[in-house]
Amino acid sequence: MITDTIVSIITALQESAISVIRLSGVEAIAHANQLFSRDLTKAESHTVQYGHIVDPVTNNVVDEVLVSVFKAPKTYTREDVVEISCHGGVLVTKKVLELCLSVGARMAEPGEFTQRAFLNGRIDLSQAESVMELIQAPNEFAQEMAISGVQGSVKKLIDPLLERLIQIIANIEVNIDYPEYDDVQVLTEDVILPLSKEFLSDLDRILKESKSGRIMKEGVKTVILGKPNVGKSSILNVLLDEEKAIVTDIAGTTRDLVEGWIRLENVALHLVDTAGLRETGDVIERIGIEKSRKALESAELAILVFDASKERDQEDQELLEATKNKERIIVYNKQDLIQSHDEDGVYVSALDGDVEALKEAINVRYVEHTQALSKPTLSNQRHIAAVQRSYLAMKRAIEALEFGMELDLVTIDLNESYVELASVVMAKEDINVLDEIFARFCLGK
Amino acid sequence: MITDTIVSIITALQESAISVIRLSGVEAIAHANQLFSRDLTKAESHTVQYGHIVDPVTNNVVDEVLVSVFKAPKTYTREDVVEISCHGGVLVTKKVLELCLSVGARMAEPGEFTQRAFLNGRIDLSQAESVMELIQAPNEFAQEMAISGVQGSVKKLIDPLLERLIQIIANIEVNIDYPEYDDVQVLTEDVILPLSKEFLSDLDRILKESKSGRIMKEGVKTVILGKPNVGKSSILNVLLDEEKAIVTDIAGTTRDLVEGWIRLENVALHLVDTAGLRETGDVIERIGIEKSRKALESAELAILVFDASKERDQEDQELLEATKNKERIIVYNKQDLIQSHDEDGVYVSALDGDVEALKEAINVRYVEHTQALSKPTLSNQRHIAAVQRSYLAMKRAIEALEFGMELDLVTIDLNESYVELASVVMAKEDINVLDEIFARFCLGK
Repeated sequence: MITDTIVSIITALQESAISVIRLSGVEAIAHANQLFSRDLTKAESHTVQYGHIVDPVTNNVVDEVLVSVFKAPKTYTREDVVEISCHGGVLVTKKVLELCLSVGARMAEPGEFTQRAFLNGRIDLSQAESVMELIQAPNEFAQEMAISGVQGSVKKLIDPLLERLIQIIANIEVNIDYPEYDDVQVLTEDVILPLSKEFLSDLDRILKESKSGRIMKEGVKTVILGKPNVGKSSILNVLLDEEKAIVTDIAGTTRDLVEGWIRLENVALHLVDTAGLRETGDVIERIGIEKSRKALESAELAILVFDASKERDQEDQELLEATKNKERIIVYNKQDLIQSHDEDGVYVSALDGDVEALKEAINVRYVEHTQALSKPTLSNQRHIAAVQRSYLAMKRAIEALEFGMELDLVTIDLNESYVELASVVMAKEDINVLDEIFARFCLGK
Repeated sequence: MITDTIVSIITALQESAISVIRLSGVEAIAHANQLFSRDLTKAESHTVQYGHIVDPVTNNVVDEVLVSVFKAPKTYTREDVVEISCHGGVLVTKKVLELCLSVGARMAEPGEFTQRAFLNGRIDLSQAESVMELIQAPNEFAQEMAISGVQGSVKKLIDPLLERLIQIIANIEVNIDYPEYDDVQVLTEDVILPLSKEFLSDLDRILKESKSGRIMKEGVKTVILGKPNVGKSSILNVLLDEEKAIVTDIAGTTRDLVEGWIRLENVALHLVDTAGLRETGDVIERIGIEKSRKALESAELAILVFDASKERDQEDQELLEATKNKERIIVYNKQDLIQSHDEDGVYVSALDGDVEALKEAINVRYVEHTQALSKPTLSNQRHIAAVQRSYLAMKRAIEALEFGMELDLVTIDLNESYVELASVVMAKEDINVLDEIFARFCLGK
C-alpha cells in the first residue's frame, strides 16, 4: 500500500519556456493547495487552473503557473496527480520543487511515477519498460516499437501464450489431484504433448521474429571498409547528409544522435567505428590493428568499397578474404569512370551524390525485418531472454514427457516455463502458477 | 493582424519524462485535430484530454499524450492554444513537432509566444522582458524581481508617472491650442514648473533605487585578494559550501550556476575571476598582472584577506593601497591563533569553517538594497536607460521653462521625456503623445 506523495521535475532542467513539476499520491492535491493561490480541492479532474505559486513561509509569489489536476484513478499513476507548469528557469523550477518538498512531498526516485503506474496495475511490466525505451529510442524503428509496447503489444503477444500454458499445466494438475479422472497415458499423448509441442513451436517463431525486432531497434551494426581514397567517407557523407537534412530542419537537435546512425527506408544502420572511417590510412595496416579487427568482428554488415575504375588488387583481395563469412555488400565507387559493370556488386558515384544502388541493396537485404514489424514482436533484451528461458524449460518438459517421466516432475519444468514467460509482463514475486490455475478452474476445493 | 499558427517545443529538448509542444493561433485546434485521436473542437477551455498522436499519412500511433486545450482569449497568447504533453524522448518529441509543421503550423521564432502575448495586449513590454529574465535569473533576488515584473510591477511603477507627465503636457497643449485659456506666465510658474520638478525628483529617486535593483539582480561583483596561504580559497570554499549544500540537495543541478555565485541573506556576490582566486601565486605579482588589475577595477567589492597571526607586511600594505578607493572589507583569517582584535576588520577562522563575521559584514553593508526591494524598483538595464533618458529630457524641459522659452519648444523635450518613459512598457512605434492626451481630455475637437 503506497501512502506517500512523490514529486519530481519531469521535464529537462535547462533554460526553456516552461518546466513541469509532477506530484503524485494521496496528498498531491493537499500539498499543492499549500502552495497554490487557488483551492484545488473541488477542481474537476483533467482541468487546468491559472494562478500563482506562493511561498507559504514568506508569502512571496514565486511564479505564475498553470496547474493541471488529475484525480485518481484515471491518471498516469492511478493516484491523484498534480502537474505544475512553471516558467522554465532553472532557479524558479528548483524553487517550486523545493516548496513541494517543504510541504511534505518526497523526492521521486528515477522512474518512480511509472513504477507506481505498474504497482497500481495501470500498466504491466513490459509497458513500463517501453516507456523508458520510447524516451531513449535511438531511431524511428525503435520509437515505433516502443510506442506499440507502451500500448500493450507485448502483453497482447504474451497473454494468450500464458493462457495456453496454464491450460496445459491445469490438465496435469487436475490429473495429479484426481488420479481417477482420466488415463494418464492417454492424457499425455492426446492432450499434453501436442499442446506443448505447439506451444514450443510458437515460442520458437516468436524468438526468430524477435531477431528482426532487435535489428530494427538497435540498427544493423555496420562497418565501411576499403582502401584509402576509394571514397569511403564520401559514401558515408552522402548517406549521412540525408539524415542531417532531416535533423537540421528542426531547432535544438542533439548532434550526438546522428553520429553513427543512418536511417534508410527499411532499416537503420548503426555505424561502428565511424570516427575511424573518416580517417585515411593504410587499409591493410588498419585491418591488422586489433581495434579495427574488433569493429569488423562485432559488425553485422560490412560494406566493402572498391574503385570501379581500377582492377582489384592485392589489398582488395585481402578485404574480400577478411569479410568472406560476413553479411557484406560490395560497392564499386566512381562508376562514372567506367562502362562495364560486374554482377557481384552495386555501382555508385559518391562524388555525384549518387549512392542509390547501395541504399537499394541494403533496403532489399533487410526488407523481411521491416515486414516482420507489421506483426507484434519482441525487441527488448530482457523479454527475449525470458522467452528463451521459457522455451528451454518447455523443451525439457517435452523431453521428459516423451521419456515417460512422472507428470508431477514434468510440471516443475512447465511451471518454470510459465514463470519465465510471465516475467515479461509481471514481477516474478507476483507470479503464482497455482493461483492462476485456481482462478480459472473452479475445482470446488 | 496575426493570422498564422505557430508551434514550438517549449520544454528543453533532452531525454526526460515528458516534453511539451505548444501550438498557438487561429488554427491551433484545427491543426491538433488532424493529429489527435479525439476531436478537440468541442473540448472545454482549460481541460486536458488523454489520447494518441497519430501520423495522418501512415496512420501509425506516434505517442500516447495528454493534450491541454486553452481557448482564446484567456490564454498565454490570447489566441487559441493547444499544448501536447508527449513522452520526453528526443525523437518522439521532434516527431510530434514535425507532424504539427506538416499539417500547417509554422515554426515559432524564439520568444514568439510571448511576443504574441504582448502584441495581443495581454502583457506590456516590461512584462514580456520579465518572462525572459525569470527564465534566465542567475540568483534568487533576480528571480524575485523578475516574477514581480511578470506580474506587472514595472508597469505599476511607470503608469502613474506617465499619467502625471501627460497632465503636464496637456496643460501646455491646451494653452497652445487655446491661447485665450489662461495666462501663460501664471500657468508655467504655478502649474507646469512645480509639477515638472516634482516629476523630475521622482525619476531621480527611482533611478537611485534602481541601483539597488541592479545590484540585487546582478550580484555584487566581488574579488577576494590576499597573499598566498592567507586562506583565500578556504574562505571561498566555506562561503561556497553553503550554496553547494543548497544546490546539491536537488537532482539535476547545473554546476555552472554555482560557479562564482555566493548567495548571502541580503545579497548575492558575483565573484570575479574565481578561477584565479583558487590559484596561489605571488599576490603582488598577480596584482601587477593586467588581468588581475582589470578584475579589481571592475569589482564593486574587494575582500582583503590578511593573516591575523602575523604583522601586516609590505605586500599587505600594497593591497590596502590598491583598494583604497574601493568598497572593501578587511578580513583577518586564522583568528584562532591570536588573542587581540583590531577594530578595522572582521575576524574569521576559515579552517574551522567559521566565516560568520564576514557574512555579517557583507549583509550589513547591503541591507539597504534588500530593503529597497520591498518597494517596486527597476533592475532591467533597458528600463533604467530609458528612465535616464526620460530624466535628462525632463531636466532640459525644466531649464527651458526657467529660461522662459516658448512653451511649444518646451513640449519637444516633454514629449521626448514621455516617449522615453513610455518605451519601458510599450513599443516606441506605438507611442503617440497626442493620442494619449486626446484619449484623456475630451476637447471637443
